[in-house]
Amino acid sequence: MAEFKTVRGMRDFLPEEAKMMRYIESKARRTAELYGYKEIITPILEPYELLAAKAGEEVRLRMYAFKDLGKRMIALRPEFTPSVARLVATALKNEPRPFRLFCVGSLYRYDEPQQGRYREFWQSNFELMGSSKPEADAEILMLTKSLMEAVSLKNYVFKVGHVGVLRGIMAQEGLDDKMQNEAMQLMDRRQYNDALKLIEEAGASSKCIATLQGLVKLKDGKVFQVIEDMKQIVKDYEKAVEAVENLQEILKLVLESGCRIDINVEAGFARGLEYYTGIIFEVNVPELDKALAGGGRYDRLIELFGGAPTPAVGIAHGIDRIMLALQLQKSMVKAKEEKMVLVIPVNEALKIEALKISQMLRKADIPAEVEVTGRKVTKALEDANRRKMDYAIIVGEKELKEKAVAIRNLTKREQKVVKIEKIAETIKGQCD
Amino acid sequence: MAEFKTVRGMRDFLPEEAKMMRYIESKARRTAELYGYKEIITPILEPYELLAAKAGEEVRLRMYAFKDLGKRMIALRPEFTPSVARLVATALKNEPRPFRLFCVGSLYRYDEPQQGRYREFWQSNFELMGSSKPEADAEILMLTKSLMEAVSLKNYVFKVGHVGVLRGIMAQEGLDDKMQNEAMQLMDRRQYNDALKLIEEAGASSKCIATLQGLVKLKDGKVFQVIEDMKQIVKDYEKAVEAVENLQEILKLVLESGCRIDINVEAGFARGLEYYTGIIFEVNVPELDKALAGGGRYDRLIELFGGAPTPAVGIAHGIDRIMLALQLQKSMVKAKEEKMVLVIPVNEALKIEALKISQMLRKADIPAEVEVTGRKVTKALEDANRRKMDYAIIVGEKELKEKAVAIRNLTKREQKVVKIEKIAETIKGQCD
Repeated sequence: MAEFKTVRGMRDFLPEEAKMMRYIESKARRTAELYGYKEIITPILEPYELLAAKAGEEVRLRMYAFKDLGKRMIALRPEFTPSVARLVATALKNEPRPFRLFCVGSLYRYDEPQQGRYREFWQSNFELMGSSKPEADAEILMLTKSLMEAVSLKNYVFKVGHVGVLRGIMAQEGLDDKMQNEAMQLMDRRQYNDALKLIEEAGASSKCIATLQGLVKLKDGKVFQVIEDMKQIVKDYEKAVEAVENLQEILKLVLESGCRIDINVEAGFARGLEYYTGIIFEVNVPELDKALAGGGRYDRLIELFGGAPTPAVGIAHGIDRIMLALQLQKSMVKAKEEKMVLVIPVNEALKIEALKISQMLRKADIPAEVEVTGRKVTKALEDANRRKMDYAIIVGEKELKEKAVAIRNLTKREQKVVKIEKIAETIKGQCD
Repeated sequence: MAEFKTVRGMRDFLPEEAKMMRYIESKARRTAELYGYKEIITPILEPYELLAAKAGEEVRLRMYAFKDLGKRMIALRPEFTPSVARLVATALKNEPRPFRLFCVGSLYRYDEPQQGRYREFWQSNFELMGSSKPEADAEILMLTKSLMEAVSLKNYVFKVGHVGVLRGIMAQEGLDDKMQNEAMQLMDRRQYNDALKLIEEAGASSKCIATLQGLVKLKDGKVFQVIEDMKQIVKDYEKAVEAVENLQEILKLVLESGCRIDINVEAGFARGLEYYTGIIFEVNVPELDKALAGGGRYDRLIELFGGAPTPAVGIAHGIDRIMLALQLQKSMVKAKEEKMVLVIPVNEALKIEALKISQMLRKADIPAEVEVTGRKVTKALEDANRRKMDYAIIVGEKELKEKAVAIRNLTKREQKVVKIEKIAETIKGQCD
């Protein structure tokens, strides 16, 4: 039989990486608990129409979509938000606002695989439903900072923008949603010249073009200075001014409450998804050219899925991306390594005693493997050393008569005889 | 827009159930750590040929299979074992034996939905590679018992059999693998008469039929008595006798090492999957007609996937099934409920102070929500009471001048003013 491979764009996580993935997931879950986000689990398979309804074309065309055996058109979720919106519009429709939801799992997009981008990827997702206030937006930024801190990420920067600025200008110029979406998508890909050309051809004034050019060219600098500059540039566009002021208030709440994060305000920042209505943000590190997290405010989405009008703001954190960033930074704080014990019976007749002792250790919350291949003690010890295990417990006739065993410290290469009833405390004592 | 539903056979887990699912998953992961099983994460999407290679027809015909945009035939995994076998035959091929692997996640089968059976379901999976010894089989039973105990399941029974008994008899009668598989599948569905008829027509002797009938009719009883009876019934079939002796040795190790589990030995027990070669087992509770866990020994599978000959034994535990059983038994031990605090600013100007205080609490590992809708204190308190929160911290001008806030115990309906620096210890003290 030919050697099987994973499907292109998919990958396995071997133990060391799997441990990092679960570690980041556990930190995301703890962040959710600390901020009051309740976990939900939604299916990976959803109706195609649900997932396609509000996705931008880029996402929609890259979904894993197919007909099931019952001829239903279904797809693997490319993002969490449609599933969350479905729940908010149905099972959670009577849940008093505000409420906070958390989910974590794998997602699927048929993108071209490259460093940090796979066709199966993992995210943790936080959504705050039912508040249009700036403190809600601020909270999403703050919890993201808490998560990045919890996993010991370094040198991360929040890139922040506000779709209301660009859209406010275009709307006042009479450009419809479709045209705005097209222009936003070009800007998302940093094709600003194409975007401006499109807008110009659609009949926008030269003042509009100059204003947009001014925003795009605005240099990074001190957060509130950039915001003042933006306000000056867009001063003739009422909705855009409101958007800048909203951004200002959110960032003021974040920074003045003592949350120390590096923020780059980018006036020309757009994100691909069409459903954003307010602040948008990403987290980036210099080691990687892809965002580790991204999100924003989407006040009209729940309605579009048939729910009651519900202002909302949310973010998704890329768990595998964060892992990659930590690997590149060599800054992964290893989860506490537990001491590992191998229990070895010296002969067949002592297997039951070895099983008993290993069970006793596990009941004392000490990880224990038992030798299961029937090989000689010396062979088993060699293997335990190779695997960098900490202790071997050798179960022999002579010691057993005294209700004892030999405990070998594999690091120190020391061995002593210990009563069975004292094994757990001996090992725990040496671990502390 | 019409109301969106989940795809047939899929479901959402709302917060209470999601918490139970994650609780069971965390117990499975801890069991893996305690027994030395290393976690791996494999893709949900795998090549169709990998998943179909050794699956019985029942599984193969019910896979979610489709062509991706690159025209590859792929499918959603219906079980973990093919992915694990792929890894053992490739990335882990040089890993010294024995080694232990753990994985957990969702699986997909297009079965008819019914109580306890969904088309998306969750399992934790343990596999011990590289030992053909009975202590390896014993370990899989023992860790399953540890997991069931850890989640506080009651009244569970291990149904145990050995495919070597039935296959040993049929092989000695000259029936080929294909015929054996057909007969085993009929027996798996308890269609014993059909199975016997098939075997008879294939030329089996009347002694063979009588022997099989004797096994199937064998009543449940004391474990080692049933095994003695089995040995007596199959005495003319050498391989079958060996299988019974293997079963006896495994169960002796389990029961004599002090692991107290209810075991029903079923001589006529068969499991659908074709790749089993030795002991097979399931865990059942009286409240549910579907198994909560199932597995067995499969010594030839790794070879069939192109790897080196590797004896192996494994089990999968149905996480959502276990949750359902716990719900039916009303025996779910609730995970420790943490105290929840709502921080309420009395006016807009105090939002930053409220954010600061909530961050201070989270840094002290105390979950805290901050009021984000700008509503009045009385409204926020009503909502906190409805949600059965434990404390409200009211951030007001007057107290702030004294570097203090009002802490309201929502259960006792008491309120007191506490210095900001003492908030965390006050709440922690009251929690203990």
